[in-house]
Amino acid sequence: MKHIADSTVRRLSLYLRFLEEFQAKGLATISSTELAARGGTTSAQVRKDLSFFGSFGKRGLGYSVPELERRLRRILGLEREWRVIIIGMGKIGAALAGYAGFHQRGFRIVGLYDADPAKVGKRIDGHVVRAASDLAREAHKEGADIAVLTVPASAAQQAADAAVKAGVRALMNFAPVPLTLPANVALKNVNMAMELEGLAFALTNPG
Amino acid sequence: MKHIADSTVRRLSLYLRFLEEFQAKGLATISSTELAARGGTTSAQVRKDLSFFGSFGKRGLGYSVPELERRLRRILGLEREWRVIIIGMGKIGAALAGYAGFHQRGFRIVGLYDADPAKVGKRIDGHVVRAASDLAREAHKEGADIAVLTVPASAAQQAADAAVKAGVRALMNFAPVPLTLPANVALKNVNMAMELEGLAFALTNPG
Repeated sequence: MKHIADSTVRRLSLYLRFLEEFQAKGLATISSTELAARGGTTSAQVRKDLSFFGSFGKRGLGYSVPELERRLRRILGLEREWRVIIIGMGKIGAALAGYAGFHQRGFRIVGLYDADPAKVGKRIDGHVVRAASDLAREAHKEGADIAVLTVPASAAQQAADAAVKAGVRALMNFAPVPLTLPANVALKNVNMAMELEGLAFALTNPG
Repeated sequence: MKHIADSTVRRLSLYLRFLEEFQAKGLATISSTELAARGGTTSAQVRKDLSFFGSFGKRGLGYSVPELERRLRRILGLEREWRVIIIGMGKIGAALAGYAGFHQRGFRIVGLYDADPAKVGKRIDGHVVRAASDLAREAHKEGADIAVLTVPASAAQQAADAAVKAGVRALMNFAPVPLTLPANVALKNVNMAMELEGLAFALTNPG
């Protein structure tokens, strides 16, 4: 398949959320204009985003809400469950362990890890925290697909390597450090302080 | 100033982090090639990113580490303190309230807010949680520049409006809903579940 930009994938995620709202309101069909209005974009953008994945809707009739919802779910890979481990039980890691938004989307937390012996064995949101040194073996048994890295920068590459060794094929990295990964492993970097720096930049350099 | 892409600003934030590392190691100068290697990019990209902001370094001599660090800090608006409020004391909001990475970068938490009377008055990381209904008045007194929104989607627009009324000019929105804001207010959307959906998409549609 053609390479799809991250920004397109993000909009598909948004469209799916809007379709769920429309569905909850009992709407059967929706036009690209209505979908665009809800998402602050244009109907041309909506049609272009969807066109990557085949043909949708009938001209003049709009999209069937349940059908488009189902197809977006399939495109995004949300028709199945994804098994997620979180490595690093600091404040952010522990908050994510109990984040309801993951479960609602089919992301199931199957393991929590930390290198600190004082944290290992403790229970966080129903999961016993395991030793980071057991990661490669345990995460393999758990069939983990995705690892969330909420470890300090100095520990991130080692944690990523252990996760990949355990069969993980996608990483969400909160550590402010670039990771070296095999080409077949997907990576998203998230950095809260850098997001704020983006805002500081915008405030300092008004458009 | 010319519009600078978010991706450029993110790289500037990364370069700043690398320069701090180089500084800590006692390095006086650094070439664009070395900076690029540290950040997993190309020296041409480094030079292009910096070129938006004037001339840096001397051909053949590389960049002075302390000078480039100081200039990046100025460009990013990090030579001053930014006053931040967090609205919504769920798990993510409470974790961010104690996140050391904010303070290290000059982002000072000046207020925490929640609409739940059971949370108002409680102390989180040294701050007393205030009533969301007092936001407009209190945040104005606090001189808040930036608001972090960690509220449910249904409460996000109202919280954003109150923050803007209180003089906030930049928002980091964790609620999975598009916000309508005045043109002079900067916005970053952050959605943990959507980040994971991006990974699910990548796993489902390998490049």
